[in-house]
Amino acid sequence: MRQPLSWGRWRAMLARTYGPGPSAGYRWASGAQGYVRNPPVGACDLQGELDRFGGISVRLARLDALDRLDAAAFQKGLQAAVQQWRSEGRTAVWLHIPILQSRFIAPAASLGFCFHHAESDSSTLTLWLREGPSRLPGYASHQVGVAGAVFDESTRKILVVQDRNKLKNMWKFPGGLSEPEEDIGDTAVREVFEETGIKSEFRSVLSIRQQHTNPGAFGKSDMYIICRLKPYSFTINFCQEECLRCEWMDLNDLAKTENTTPITSRVARLLLYGYREGFDKIDLTVEELPAVYTGLFYKLYHKELPENYKTMKGID
Amino acid sequence: MRQPLSWGRWRAMLARTYGPGPSAGYRWASGAQGYVRNPPVGACDLQGELDRFGGISVRLARLDALDRLDAAAFQKGLQAAVQQWRSEGRTAVWLHIPILQSRFIAPAASLGFCFHHAESDSSTLTLWLREGPSRLPGYASHQVGVAGAVFDESTRKILVVQDRNKLKNMWKFPGGLSEPEEDIGDTAVREVFEETGIKSEFRSVLSIRQQHTNPGAFGKSDMYIICRLKPYSFTINFCQEECLRCEWMDLNDLAKTENTTPITSRVARLLLYGYREGFDKIDLTVEELPAVYTGLFYKLYHKELPENYKTMKGID
Repeated sequence: MRQPLSWGRWRAMLARTYGPGPSAGYRWASGAQGYVRNPPVGACDLQGELDRFGGISVRLARLDALDRLDAAAFQKGLQAAVQQWRSEGRTAVWLHIPILQSRFIAPAASLGFCFHHAESDSSTLTLWLREGPSRLPGYASHQVGVAGAVFDESTRKILVVQDRNKLKNMWKFPGGLSEPEEDIGDTAVREVFEETGIKSEFRSVLSIRQQHTNPGAFGKSDMYIICRLKPYSFTINFCQEECLRCEWMDLNDLAKTENTTPITSRVARLLLYGYREGFDKIDLTVEELPAVYTGLFYKLYHKELPENYKTMKGID
Repeated sequence: MRQPLSWGRWRAMLARTYGPGPSAGYRWASGAQGYVRNPPVGACDLQGELDRFGGISVRLARLDALDRLDAAAFQKGLQAAVQQWRSEGRTAVWLHIPILQSRFIAPAASLGFCFHHAESDSSTLTLWLREGPSRLPGYASHQVGVAGAVFDESTRKILVVQDRNKLKNMWKFPGGLSEPEEDIGDTAVREVFEETGIKSEFRSVLSIRQQHTNPGAFGKSDMYIICRLKPYSFTINFCQEECLRCEWMDLNDLAKTENTTPITSRVARLLLYGYREGFDKIDLTVEELPAVYTGLFYKLYHKELPENYKTMKGID
């Protein structure tokens, strides 16, 4: 979404907007020569990059003499820079701060900056410079959990567990949170193996649940996806830390028991319907497609589409 | 997931583990009486709560005299506390820091703490105390975008836009990022209206895409969901800031054009299949169900299930 412009392209854009010459720069420094506007006394050399949405990104890790800079001088300098960026019509400021330089966070916050996000060893703060509420894109809003409904068609048995550490011991499908950059089907297969010792293959996505303000998601939202998996090992060796029980249960029994969660019950009934009428009635199948702009690939899930529709051959 | 114990229950648990008396406490303070172990000199009064996974949560906002505490004293105190928690067999420390007190972040980082997440006016750092890699749950990993495929069955027309600000002007469905706590269908309807001026109703989920290391998602993952919507207004009044063009296009034309993205093309063909053979072939319908533990409700999406399977009446 944010795509920093090259220095050259940025300079060209500024020149078009403000005309050439020293006053065109956003860069400012105490006592420095050149592209400086109202250099504040005793301040640092703040560098910013303009993005294609008119925002300025400042990466503190790239500043010279960062270790010797004190928080008060930084605040003074940032205040002057913000004033200048605002007068130049910039939309927003993004401030990227290495964790060991976090002494600069509070000074920025006192100028109105807020956390956009933080992870591992750095944080990003933002300040919206325009009128009205911020239009900056938010950070990741959902955690993704995946469960595997491992169904053995030949015996009509389905793999279920009861969580340890839960107040009510209800039968459910093994599953857990996706690791960073892990595909849905891979999470299902991994979690099933870790919890139960059963090896399986991804077949389809059966259902998607969206839930908000989840305490287990640090107040964020939760997307919980149940996949249909096909087992290729059958001897249970379950994780004693996570599970209290683990069984191969007749699918009819799971569809009828009250000792389960509403979502497990619903998906058991959906599976029973698929088992009797054909899994094509319930499955979302997966395909890999190319992204247009990033050159990356992604996984797309939808109901199976007949081949002639995929190619539009013989379709008027 | 994290559920702080009550003080009483926590004390009882500690007493069972360590026996009663002063040595049972995790609370420590310089010069304080009572439940103190090796009080460090010149340090603060760190309060922690034990969660049910054996982790300690420290909320700096609850500390007395926080404004007068300096970073060096905090670091000394935290170091001693971490040592004690480790010796007590605790699993992890969660440190919640108000943004204006961010001067305590770098001292914590120098003891090995990392950012778990930060939002708005506070950050949370963690330290894993056990052997091996951290088993703490990660923060939200996905942003969720939703597009609306607004299809008018009576004219076989579908609503499409071309983005402004894109290098290639390809036809696509209007859409955008979900707001915090917004349901999938609501995002689709809102984004379609904001971009095109068309009012519509949610009908179904058609497809789900998962993509990783997305530059537009700050390097996190992206879940992009396309919904089928039914229009109930037809006069286009599109947002000039976001869109270059907006049209009602014949569905056959969209299914055949090369001037579109792979995902739009695929969903257009899926829609064409549904239009000819019945939307039940392609739709995931939605239902609201209750969560067992939180008392919240959630939306569940899956292929339509016949009523007798939902109730299991007459199903053996």
